[in-house]
Amino acid sequence: MTRLLSSIALAIATALALAAPLKAQDASEAAEAYAPQKVVYHLNEAGGDDGAGYKPALNNIQNHINAVGADNLDLRVVMHGDGVGLLQAAKDNQQLQGLISGLKTEGVRFLVCNNTLVGREIDAEADLFDVWPEDIVPSGVAELAKLQTEGFVYIKP
Amino acid sequence: MTRLLSSIALAIATALALAAPLKAQDASEAAEAYAPQKVVYHLNEAGGDDGAGYKPALNNIQNHINAVGADNLDLRVVMHGDGVGLLQAAKDNQQLQGLISGLKTEGVRFLVCNNTLVGREIDAEADLFDVWPEDIVPSGVAELAKLQTEGFVYIKP
Amino acid sequence: MTRLLSSIALAIATALALAAPLKAQDASEAAEAYAPQKVVYHLNEAGGDDGAGYKPALNNIQNHINAVGADNLDLRVVMHGDGVGLLQAAKDNQQLQGLISGLKTEGVRFLVCNNTLVGREIDAEADLFDVWPEDIVPSGVAELAKLQTEGFVYIKP
Repeated sequence: MTRLLSSIALAIATALALAAPLKAQDASEAAEAYAPQKVVYHLNEAGGDDGAGYKPALNNIQNHINAVGADNLDLRVVMHGDGVGLLQAAKDNQQLQGLISGLKTEGVRFLVCNNTLVGREIDAEADLFDVWPEDIVPSGVAELAKLQTEGFVYIKP
Repeated sequence: MTRLLSSIALAIATALALAAPLKAQDASEAAEAYAPQKVVYHLNEAGGDDGAGYKPALNNIQNHINAVGADNLDLRVVMHGDGVGLLQAAKDNQQLQGLISGLKTEGVRFLVCNNTLVGREIDAEADLFDVWPEDIVPSGVAELAKLQTEGFVYIKP
Repeated sequence: MTRLLSSIALAIATALALAAPLKAQDASEAAEAYAPQKVVYHLNEAGGDDGAGYKPALNNIQNHINAVGADNLDLRVVMHGDGVGLLQAAKDNQQLQGLISGLKTEGVRFLVCNNTLVGREIDAEADLFDVWPEDIVPSGVAELAKLQTEGFVYIKP
């Protein structure tokens, strides 16, 4: 190719690039903005008997999924101390059950501290909503540290 | 170099190192103590109508800058949920405006969650103090995770 | 060693490994579950005049040690702002003193923010329980960031 021809080719390529639809570029940037994330949410506060105090946290998690995409997100909730109250309140609260089950459907895992269960004499099966053996971790705080050591980032909602 | 010569050279180098002034060494250690930092502060709690509840957090940030040095610090504040109340309270509060503007002068960025703006029908321009389009992030919690994934460390004041 | 002999040696070694008591294997797995951790706890809230509000945090830390093992854990508590109230309350509270001293025996370090001491005119020796010069850091928040930058993970109890 002569020098003139390659200059022309470059000019055409540049023109084509500039003409690319802006929307597509925006979408690509948005996808790039929130790359895959591993996140642990720390829940250890009381939410009231009706569990209303937990709704902002559950709402945060849903917004987090909406922003990043369920496929891009490994999100775990570690509950200990008063934070276990979420699953106690949910036991008799269909709205909370719906929110929690919805998040589980999108891949969120709710992990419960065994130290709290033993210390407060809570029976996971009888007293908490939808807890399975694999959801119980020996220590909530040690689990928070372990997950972060493995690359999860921390958010206290 | 012969073995003898290199032993002598090592002895001289060691003596020079030991003779280095203590002050300089201390200063170097102090500078080393707080090496460059990337930090994200998480603000999602209410601070009262007058915003007085936000002053400790703003004070923490100023102390952080004083300790590390503005040039050594990339500090961002992510506000969502009730935390956006800081910029609502500042809208009519000159003291808060002064604190926020002062921190901005030192490089602090205040980022606002768009989910919160939409959900609470907050108009950034009309209702918040000094928010620009580049200060609005799609999701506060996803931004907290993104920044940490990029090497920012997390502080909830 | 001939090929035959080394095959026999390998077989014996494998048999011995498989015959190892199950308990030992379990313990090894448990130890693996919580590999060595470096953790910083952030304390900046008030705990009441009697310091009762600090007990859950101290309890969390003890549970953390129990789960991971003191030898596996480098755990620091950074106190600033109202969080320094822990050591103020402990000054005249033997129960808190016992809890704090017990944790120190297991390697926990309690670090105090000098900005808070100066700002609130607190005399570490006269007003706080068992604080030594090496326990005082220039800035609590900068220390939180420094430790995380050095690989500590963050927990706000």
